[in-house]
Amino acid sequence: MTRSEGFTYTSTRSRVVFGVDASRERLAAEVDALGGQRVLVVAGAAEMPLARELAEPFADRVVGWFDDVRQHVPVECAEAARALARDTSADLLLSVGGGSTTGTAKAVALTDRLPVLAVPTTYAGSEMTNVWGLTEGARKTTGVDDVVAPRTVVYDPALTVGLPPGLSAASGLNAMAHCVEALWAPGANPVTTLLAVEAVAGLTRGLPGVLADGEDLTARSDVLYGAWLAGTAFATAGSGLHHKTCHVLGGAFALPHAEMHAVVLPHVLAFQTPALHPATVDRLSRALQGPGAERPAELLADLDDALGIPAGLRDVGLREEDLPEAATLVADVVADGAIPNPRPISRADVDALVRAAWAGRPRRGGPE
Amino acid sequence: MTRSEGFTYTSTRSRVVFGVDASRERLAAEVDALGGQRVLVVAGAAEMPLARELAEPFADRVVGWFDDVRQHVPVECAEAARALARDTSADLLLSVGGGSTTGTAKAVALTDRLPVLAVPTTYAGSEMTNVWGLTEGARKTTGVDDVVAPRTVVYDPALTVGLPPGLSAASGLNAMAHCVEALWAPGANPVTTLLAVEAVAGLTRGLPGVLADGEDLTARSDVLYGAWLAGTAFATAGSGLHHKTCHVLGGAFALPHAEMHAVVLPHVLAFQTPALHPATVDRLSRALQGPGAERPAELLADLDDALGIPAGLRDVGLREEDLPEAATLVADVVADGAIPNPRPISRADVDALVRAAWAGRPRRGGPE
Repeated sequence: MTRSEGFTYTSTRSRVVFGVDASRERLAAEVDALGGQRVLVVAGAAEMPLARELAEPFADRVVGWFDDVRQHVPVECAEAARALARDTSADLLLSVGGGSTTGTAKAVALTDRLPVLAVPTTYAGSEMTNVWGLTEGARKTTGVDDVVAPRTVVYDPALTVGLPPGLSAASGLNAMAHCVEALWAPGANPVTTLLAVEAVAGLTRGLPGVLADGEDLTARSDVLYGAWLAGTAFATAGSGLHHKTCHVLGGAFALPHAEMHAVVLPHVLAFQTPALHPATVDRLSRALQGPGAERPAELLADLDDALGIPAGLRDVGLREEDLPEAATLVADVVADGAIPNPRPISRADVDALVRAAWAGRPRRGGPE
Repeated sequence: MTRSEGFTYTSTRSRVVFGVDASRERLAAEVDALGGQRVLVVAGAAEMPLARELAEPFADRVVGWFDDVRQHVPVECAEAARALARDTSADLLLSVGGGSTTGTAKAVALTDRLPVLAVPTTYAGSEMTNVWGLTEGARKTTGVDDVVAPRTVVYDPALTVGLPPGLSAASGLNAMAHCVEALWAPGANPVTTLLAVEAVAGLTRGLPGVLADGEDLTARSDVLYGAWLAGTAFATAGSGLHHKTCHVLGGAFALPHAEMHAVVLPHVLAFQTPALHPATVDRLSRALQGPGAERPAELLADLDDALGIPAGLRDVGLREEDLPEAATLVADVVADGAIPNPRPISRADVDALVRAAWAGRPRRGGPE
C-alpha cells in the first residue's frame, strides 16, 4: 500500500516501558498507574519464581497466583483462571512469561474486562496484539477484541537472558516472520512498513550475538526491541502468504513450528520481492545488513545459516513424496486469488515455492 | 534516548484515514464508525463551503455549523461553540480546517467530552496531539487531556491543494520543526525518532514540488504524510530547545512565526548534532536527501533556500542592537540546565546561536 493509493492506520492505546532491569525497577509504578489494588499474577510454573520476585515490591496487593499455563490456552485453563480472578475480586492481571502466559491473561480479560500488564520473557509478540485464542479439544478459536490488548507492557531484556540459545533463535525468528510478513500483509501501510523494517534491523543485529552469548544485554535489547516492533507491525498488517502457508504445512505434516517458519520465510520473501516497492526492498536489504542493492531473501538465508537453522523442509521431516499433497493443500488456501497478495499466486508458483523450501535455501545466482 | 538506556513509549487510540479524495469518499463511513448521529461541524468562514460540501452525504445528521474560528482559540469562541454543542445535543464534532479549527473542536471536547473527527487542511499537526490551548485576553493557557485528541483523522491531500504556495511552505516548515525537535525533545525514544526521520523525508521530498506546483498531488501527499508523522512524533517527544527559543523570540520581538521557525531551526540542529547518535545523524542526512555523511543542518539550510525563506532573523525584523536582550531572554529559559537537553547549553552557546540565526544560514565550512 502506498501513499498515493491511500491507507488507514489504527493505533490502540498502549504503553511500553523498555529497558534493562525495567521489570525490577519500574513494575510497581506501572501497577500503580493502572490502579492495581488487587493483582492476579499469571505465570507458568517455570516462571513463577521470577514472577514472585518481580511482585515482591507490591506483594501486599497480590490476591492470587495462577500457574496452570498451557500452550494454545485450553478452555479449561481459561475457566480456572477466570474463576480465580472472580473469587479474588482481582482488578489487574499481571502476566509474566511467553505467548501462552499472555494468552491466558487475555482469556480472562476477554470475559472479565480486567486490564492486563504484560511482562514478556520471550519474543512472542502477542502482548502487542488484540488477538485472543482458545482451544477446546483439537479446535482452536481465535478472535479480536481491544479489551485483551495489554494496557502496559514492560520489556526487560534482562529477563530474556534465561531463554536458552536455541529457543532464543527460534523465538527471534518467529518475530522475524511477523515483521517480514507485515511488509505485504493485507493491512500493510507506510507506518507498519517503517516499523517492520526497524524490527528486521533489530533482530538481524541482535540474534547472532544472543546465540554467541545469551547474556549479552546489548544483543538481547536489540532482539527484544525488534520483537516488540515486529508484534506491533504484525498486529496491524495481519497474516499473509507466509503464515497461511506455514499454518497449512504445520497442520498437515506436523513439522516443527520454529524451524519450519525459519526455512519457509526466505522463500516466501524471494517470491514477494518483485512486487515490493523498490524503496522497501532497499530498506529491507540494509536492515538485513546488506549493501542495499542485494535481494533480501538471500540475506535472510545467510542469517538462517548463522543461526544454525536446518536448510530445507527435507531436513525437518517433510518427505519428497509428500510434496504434491503439500502443494495442493497450500494452493487451496493461497493460490488463484484466495488471499490478497501484492503478486498473483498461481498453482505453479506454489509448486515451485514448496519444492524450493523443501530442497534448501534460496541462494545467490538462483532463479529470481 | 537509546535502547540500552531504556525508554517509555505511549500511544493513544487513534485512527487515520489517508488518501487523495478520502474526505469525499470515506468521511460518511467514519462518521458512522464513531456513532455520529448529531454532528456539529466546526470550520472557519473560509473553509465553511468546503465543510458543507464534505458533509453533504450525511447532511441529515448535521445539527449545527460553527464558524467563529480564531487564532489561539479565545475563551469566548470556545464558550460559544460549547453552547451550540449543548443546544443542539451534538454527539460528534467534525472539524474541517487548520490548527485553530482543530483547536476550537478540542476546546469543546475538553468540557463536553465529545469525540472529534478532524479533517485537516494544513500541515499544523495539532490533530495528532492531546494538547489543548485557550486564550483569555493576552494570556494563553495550554493543557493535556486525552479526551481532546481526535478519535479519527481523515488526511486528504486533495484538500491542501487550495493552500497557497507561501502558506504551504510555512505550514510545512512548521511541521519540519515538529519532527526535527522530536529527535532530542524530552520524550524522544527510538520509535519517535523513527517516525520523525520518516517525516523529515516526506517533507523534504514534497515541499519543493508543492512550491513549484500546488496541484501536484504526489508532492501534496508526501508533505501531508510528513506532517502527520511529525505531529505524531512531536506529540510524544514534546517541546525542546527549538520551540522554547522561538517562543521567547516570537513573544518578545513580534517576529513572523513561520519565517522565524524556519530560520532558527537549522541553527538549533547544528548545535544539537554533535550530541545526537551517529546513526540518527546519518538517517537524518539521508532523509534530507544528503549522501548520509554530511552535517544535516546545512542540508536543512539548502531546503530553506529552495523554499525562498529569508536567510536570517535580520531579514525578518530583528535588529542587531536587540541581540543582547534576545540572548538574555532565551538563556533564561534554556541555558544552564533550565531544560533537559542532550547537549549542555551555556550562556555563550545561546549568544552564538542567536547571533548566528540573526546573521544568516549555517553554511558548509562554517563553525561546527
